[in-house]
Amino acid sequence: MFEAHFQTFEEPESGVALTARLSAFREELARRKFSGFVVPRADQQQNEYVAPSEERLAWLTGFTGSAGMAIVLSGVAAVFVDGRYTLQAAKQVDGKAWAVEPLIDPSPESWLAKHLAAGDRLGFDPWLHTAVAAERLAAACAKAGAELVAVDANPLDAVWTERPPPPLAPVTVHGAQFAGEAEAEKLNRIRAEIDKLGVDALVLSDPHAVAWTFNIRGADVAHTPLPLSYALVPKDGRPTVFIDQRKLSNSARDHLEQCADVEGPDALTPSLTALAQKGASIALDNATAADAFSRLIGSVGGKAVRGNDPVSLLKAVKNATEIEGTRAAHRRDAVALARFLAWIDREAPSGALTEIDTVEALETFRRDTGALKDVSFPTIAGTGPNGAIVHYRVTRKTNRRIARGDLLLIDSGAQYEDGTTDVTRTIAIGEPSGEMRDRFTRVLRGHIAIARAVFPDGTTGAQIDALARQFLWQAGIDFEHGTGHGVGSYLSVHEGPARISKLGTTPLKRGMILSNEPGYYKTDAYGIRIENLELVIGTDIAGAEKPMNAFETLTLAPIDRRLIDVTMLSPAELGWLNNYHARVAAKVRPHLDDATKLWLDQAAAALK
Amino acid sequence: MFEAHFQTFEEPESGVALTARLSAFREELARRKFSGFVVPRADQQQNEYVAPSEERLAWLTGFTGSAGMAIVLSGVAAVFVDGRYTLQAAKQVDGKAWAVEPLIDPSPESWLAKHLAAGDRLGFDPWLHTAVAAERLAAACAKAGAELVAVDANPLDAVWTERPPPPLAPVTVHGAQFAGEAEAEKLNRIRAEIDKLGVDALVLSDPHAVAWTFNIRGADVAHTPLPLSYALVPKDGRPTVFIDQRKLSNSARDHLEQCADVEGPDALTPSLTALAQKGASIALDNATAADAFSRLIGSVGGKAVRGNDPVSLLKAVKNATEIEGTRAAHRRDAVALARFLAWIDREAPSGALTEIDTVEALETFRRDTGALKDVSFPTIAGTGPNGAIVHYRVTRKTNRRIARGDLLLIDSGAQYEDGTTDVTRTIAIGEPSGEMRDRFTRVLRGHIAIARAVFPDGTTGAQIDALARQFLWQAGIDFEHGTGHGVGSYLSVHEGPARISKLGTTPLKRGMILSNEPGYYKTDAYGIRIENLELVIGTDIAGAEKPMNAFETLTLAPIDRRLIDVTMLSPAELGWLNNYHARVAAKVRPHLDDATKLWLDQAAAALK
Repeated sequence: MFEAHFQTFEEPESGVALTARLSAFREELARRKFSGFVVPRADQQQNEYVAPSEERLAWLTGFTGSAGMAIVLSGVAAVFVDGRYTLQAAKQVDGKAWAVEPLIDPSPESWLAKHLAAGDRLGFDPWLHTAVAAERLAAACAKAGAELVAVDANPLDAVWTERPPPPLAPVTVHGAQFAGEAEAEKLNRIRAEIDKLGVDALVLSDPHAVAWTFNIRGADVAHTPLPLSYALVPKDGRPTVFIDQRKLSNSARDHLEQCADVEGPDALTPSLTALAQKGASIALDNATAADAFSRLIGSVGGKAVRGNDPVSLLKAVKNATEIEGTRAAHRRDAVALARFLAWIDREAPSGALTEIDTVEALETFRRDTGALKDVSFPTIAGTGPNGAIVHYRVTRKTNRRIARGDLLLIDSGAQYEDGTTDVTRTIAIGEPSGEMRDRFTRVLRGHIAIARAVFPDGTTGAQIDALARQFLWQAGIDFEHGTGHGVGSYLSVHEGPARISKLGTTPLKRGMILSNEPGYYKTDAYGIRIENLELVIGTDIAGAEKPMNAFETLTLAPIDRRLIDVTMLSPAELGWLNNYHARVAAKVRPHLDDATKLWLDQAAAALK
Repeated sequence: MFEAHFQTFEEPESGVALTARLSAFREELARRKFSGFVVPRADQQQNEYVAPSEERLAWLTGFTGSAGMAIVLSGVAAVFVDGRYTLQAAKQVDGKAWAVEPLIDPSPESWLAKHLAAGDRLGFDPWLHTAVAAERLAAACAKAGAELVAVDANPLDAVWTERPPPPLAPVTVHGAQFAGEAEAEKLNRIRAEIDKLGVDALVLSDPHAVAWTFNIRGADVAHTPLPLSYALVPKDGRPTVFIDQRKLSNSARDHLEQCADVEGPDALTPSLTALAQKGASIALDNATAADAFSRLIGSVGGKAVRGNDPVSLLKAVKNATEIEGTRAAHRRDAVALARFLAWIDREAPSGALTEIDTVEALETFRRDTGALKDVSFPTIAGTGPNGAIVHYRVTRKTNRRIARGDLLLIDSGAQYEDGTTDVTRTIAIGEPSGEMRDRFTRVLRGHIAIARAVFPDGTTGAQIDALARQFLWQAGIDFEHGTGHGVGSYLSVHEGPARISKLGTTPLKRGMILSNEPGYYKTDAYGIRIENLELVIGTDIAGAEKPMNAFETLTLAPIDRRLIDVTMLSPAELGWLNNYHARVAAKVRPHLDDATKLWLDQAAAALK
């Protein structure tokens, strides 16, 4: 009945068959006189999703998680992963060839301290690491009396047979009806930032920044509509976009050439070299610029000025057109969500459905809108104990039948040209336990505390994060992830620089879109998360002594009333919930079929 | 009837008469070939209260605030103060001689950028600035093509006639019944920290750290019972305490010599020099170590390792004896507070009292306990518009009669040998307005949110600060100071490193004492603040999945019920208030005279 186009459920290949690759790689390293080599899960632009041609870590080790690193020494090799991937890595890699080690604490650098010998030469590809990461590796080598050596050509690529070609998805123009601001205007604002930095030029090493600045989109990586590309913006004069020209239609090329020169990716290094040779100071983004840029600029007499890409903050603050677009995208998405939630309520209690069924159905309902470009990330559909795995992704092997008494956690999102969505709902299948309702209600109260928050200009996400946790803390529980992340406008569903987390030091500004997604996870039992997207807006308060901000909730989907213990809610919280459901009904009901209307009338009815 | 011993109400001298001092200073600078000089409000240890012999800024400019700086150039001179002192500085300094400029934003460094000329020599005394502050000044000079020059002898001291001698208050031993941990044990823990730092020695440049480590107290500065002193703790072997030996009785000397060598202050530089000449790495405290230390150590071949003094965190976590002591101190203080609040309620409505009367009465009630050593800071007693001045200190000139319709804000504290207190109450004189009750209740709800907070290990003050502000933010208002500061144990009432503020990055640990003091200030109208001290304690919660912490409220004084709009409180908030008042009554009532008992029965009665 349903089918997923944008997500597969295959188990990644098992690691045992890959040991020949490790042997070949070690021979290549020995040929090049390296004692070892570092293989990060990264492309040249530190993208969240990378093209198959950049999946070096998976090809070598079998580990397919979205973050990690391998270090191969002559006698020992390790894969470094964070807590969410420990079990997955242990299954995917060959335990005889690889140790699985922590990525965060202790760090790979402390592993290096133990395993490197004085005089060792550890190789790394400076295109796949940021300068900060390279400095950490260099310090670890220096401590051990070893040397960190940057390679010109990656030795792994030399042994990677049948490496896929780089992606060549066509570039589309992100029209004014979606972007709301012409490239020329954006470039003026970027030049003002370049002035503030006091540099001669800015490298846009983040392809999201290129896509935003030049109002283009693409499909080179999964789920994020960006074209792999770079740009160089001088303080005066025309910028240059570096992009594989096979991706450009005539109209896309015409669009770009109105305000930029267009060159192939191979022209980037010569352009930067020419600029640096004149002694230029060139701003690089700490988060995405490859260490190779800093090396190149410094080696020919230029000055690399590292910092935060100023485009990141410009892009995070949405303009009126983008805001209207995201509201429309959420109304559209809400119709699919209502049909989906009604379908779950109808079908799941009989025990007929599996997690994969729900993923396929949800994508189908979204495709029925006629506007779906992609899912914004692989849907997380975890029932029962699978719901407690924060970054769970269902495969044919883990696929679980949804049973009565389960909580079903569904975290999903859509890419529409007018906006990117991200929503999590937790659904009771059959009768939930008292504990489940207690935990759900605490999560809901935290969610409402964020949704209702009012805060002055300059307030950071770190300052309000605890509002989401306070009711869980009172019960001695917590959730081990941030409360919210920034969201792009038909771009990445995870967008900086603002976030709601104890590490969120960027002030929340009007026009930013952030997720609000507190949760609770009981290992081997169930998971709960309630996620809406929130737009930062100004709010007028009678007698206010300073400008105040608040959130407008963008997501429009019922929150499962069967999981709410109304006696735990304050009148203000109950009022928020009933208002929210009334708003959902008013905006969504007119666009529903009769059966779903009936479902919604119940699902969004006021609680007392 | 009442009289204050520990606080005076004199107006500081006016600035106009001081212009001769500026002329003399400029002549001295010219003689020494300086283009200018920097005069901070600081002693050599960055103390909050400084001895009269260190009041260079006040002597030169007339400005007597607790933070500030002067820069004298040949043609222009400025006094830099923060927002709370702008008005005071304008009154105190001679506007013809001095400009009054911001201390924070823009910084004195940006003023220097405008007023320094290339080739200028700006002098500074490296004993009166931290290394970080000196680096900022040096960068500003470099930018202007000028030079920052450290002097060996302060040119201001050369022209300061009738400079008071340094203080020589006797040192007392802080007995085991108060300190709870022997010096030798503390030194073992400090040596473990020195090991962690990997250095050869640690300089205790903060006299609070010396007092805590060696269990001594003194009276060299106002309101904080510390003896001015330094210590040098090597990783092995006996530490040395540097202190003017005239302050030591035989018993104090015997106490110190059990675990340390004792030398005069002049021996510090030679000792450090000898150690540094051997190539030692020596840890210095960023917050209190003079720039002169870094210069000295570096100049003779040692290595200055700057960071946070590890004693600061050890000292902040109180042991069981200190905790029992502070509870006793608060019970004792509560009797004085009850008598004081009852007296206010009795006397103030007739219009008979002034702010100074309240300060004198409060100190008298505290002296009646028989245990008062000092007030922990000059009492802030502001009625009506004076209450809106956050750091108000009453003088004979500003002294205001307390009138019906006023809010009276009283922020005060006591130094007892077993503990330091700090408490603010806001009292309605006559009938408060609806707005006052709304504001007061919002402040109270924030105060209760902190008092009731439950949080996991590792939570910082920055994470919970917004709990105190949320109800004010909802009305578009806020308060422009932190929510809470650390408090010492018969030491400084303002103690680091933890605080409840958006800048509070130190995790809150069990045994720390912090103030909880949200407020609201309506300029020219009234001020509101509610302050209790809170002890961080562990809390057992059924089903908790990790160790959780909470606050135990130490302060025991009724919160003015006439200012509370009960309809704004949640049942949980009302429950907290009634429980708190019941606890106050249970602990304090048995120690009161009959009239005060009757008053307390009303003041602490349950609200419905």
